Amino acid sequence: MSELRKDPILGDWVILAPGRASRPFDTGNNRSGESSEVCPFCKGNENETPAAVMTISDDDADDWAVRVIPNRYSAVTSFDTAGSDAGTSEQTAGSIPAPGYHEVFVESPTHHQAMRELSESQVSLILQAWRDRLREVSVDPAVAHTMIFRNEGAAAGASLEHVHSQLLATSFVPARIGAELDAGRTHYELTGQLAWTAMLERELFDRRRIITESEHFVLLCPFASRFPGEMCLLPHVSSPGFETTSDEDLKLLTAVLRKAIVKLDRVFQGAAFNLGLHTAPPRDPGRPYYHWHMTITPRLTGIAGFEVGSGAWINIVSPEDAANRYRTSSS
Amino acid sequence: MSELRKDPILGDWVILAPGRASRPFDTGNNRSGESSEVCPFCKGNENETPAAVMTISDDDADDWAVRVIPNRYSAVTSFDTAGSDAGTSEQTAGSIPAPGYHEVFVESPTHHQAMRELSESQVSLILQAWRDRLREVSVDPAVAHTMIFRNEGAAAGASLEHVHSQLLATSFVPARIGAELDAGRTHYELTGQLAWTAMLERELFDRRRIITESEHFVLLCPFASRFPGEMCLLPHVSSPGFETTSDEDLKLLTAVLRKAIVKLDRVFQGAAFNLGLHTAPPRDPGRPYYHWHMTITPRLTGIAGFEVGSGAWINIVSPEDAANRYRTSSS
Repeated sequence: MSELRKDPILGDWVILAPGRASRPFDTGNNRSGESSEVCPFCKGNENETPAAVMTISDDDADDWAVRVIPNRYSAVTSFDTAGSDAGTSEQTAGSIPAPGYHEVFVESPTHHQAMRELSESQVSLILQAWRDRLREVSVDPAVAHTMIFRNEGAAAGASLEHVHSQLLATSFVPARIGAELDAGRTHYELTGQLAWTAMLERELFDRRRIITESEHFVLLCPFASRFPGEMCLLPHVSSPGFETTSDEDLKLLTAVLRKAIVKLDRVFQGAAFNLGLHTAPPRDPGRPYYHWHMTITPRLTGIAGFEVGSGAWINIVSPEDAANRYRTSSS
Repeated sequence: MSELRKDPILGDWVILAPGRASRPFDTGNNRSGESSEVCPFCKGNENETPAAVMTISDDDADDWAVRVIPNRYSAVTSFDTAGSDAGTSEQTAGSIPAPGYHEVFVESPTHHQAMRELSESQVSLILQAWRDRLREVSVDPAVAHTMIFRNEGAAAGASLEHVHSQLLATSFVPARIGAELDAGRTHYELTGQLAWTAMLERELFDRRRIITESEHFVLLCPFASRFPGEMCLLPHVSSPGFETTSDEDLKLLTAVLRKAIVKLDRVFQGAAFNLGLHTAPPRDPGRPYYHWHMTITPRLTGIAGFEVGSGAWINIVSPEDAANRYRTSSS
């Protein structure tokens, strides 16, 4: 049973999920938990995982190409269970059950370990799965926030090698996303323009941090990048929610995303990375002022005491330098 | 030349410090930079580092016991340099030089790799050095915030093995500390009580998260711990700034801090950890409502995509369970 706890000083939420301590590992991240012998994500091992909530197939194949399953070691509790357990004596003042959806996207039937190894059509199917699951879980009125994320490599926090991504839908809006929403709304009220649109205009004029552009999408290194080589991928034209992306735009996005992943690998030689898809919370009043975007974060340097304690960041590679290296690398 | 960059959406500060990319490593964290052959912190190698800004000796010894030096790979630029460079064409709109102090406390003349190996009197001298340097740099009117932190072990972000800690004084208040200050002030205005005092009262009544208590100090696992086994060490009686701690209290604090470090090692077998000393910024209006505290964070699990992207945290070990394990371990 997962539990939400509010920090008594800061008011931030922490998800307490003791059930995740027993999840299996095959990436060397096995400080706790047991080592996995059979890859539960490979085709043929479907009985090692919960039943799929969705599968996507290639046009010309019967078998699944992308498989979406509930996370067996979920960080949250299903809304049904959380509801029936609400109010039990297990609860401490200030904590409540942590309801939500935690799903895994098995991104390939074969045991690839890196997104860069996947074909363009396969990546396109993954993006389609992300969009469709976001659309589906956002309908639930208890969902306040949804996020898609990918951990690739042990240094990025991955516990299993097989290419996969995750959806986490929660009953609260996390601190950083809440701050983005507030800032977006305030910026609009003050200027009549979206904060992300204003940022994009400045970046496209300046060009030093632009990596590549296509018809509908821009890939850049953020001006205030927190991590060396951090990238941001976003549409030119503002769109609050990723779940409304058209099939045609998914195809255009696929090309830019693959370019980003290949460039990351070329410049930072197989570095672990996180990918986060930030999309407007379905029912937040700040939604119209949001602009969905992906953040791709190579994990080259540790997160040390200053960052953990202060919430401020020290970055040792300038985004202009990173963008220049990305621009000049082949992809 | 370090630079401060403000995130155009969130308004958070990032310190851009390309000079730190070339710092030496001997902990296995050497993704970039060069490997160190001679330990620059060992007695006899003082000429490998900048000249000390302070040294502390044992009562009955001539040689230094703790040595404080400017960080050669500073995350910030000295206030003098930053001032003279202000307004050059190197600056981008929205970025300014990052002035401050970044100092290293060499915590022992001999090559110890863990704080738990240091004697009680040695730890007491380290705390004295922290207090005295905080007092000194806080006098500078350009300093908005000071933090002491320790990274022990590669997983905690340490680049050198030899026991050391750091002071970072900046011209801005980091996001998380700013939020603590705001919350502390609001809590006082609403209730007439300090937020930390209220939290301590609840915890001392409940007792499930208390690890140990002494005459003036309490060691506990925070209710909304972000990391497995996270500890908080704080004085019973509110005191905003660590720099006003008396010599007598430093001795009492030493005993509890050593207990915490030994218990951490017993329960989590040599785990890497961060220690952060949060003390009220010298000139912040929220200062009277702050309560200095130390956070000790074992680094057992990686920080993955959800945390990096959302600013919310998933913790797989309940603080009640952690406190119980700490309580029953010897120390």
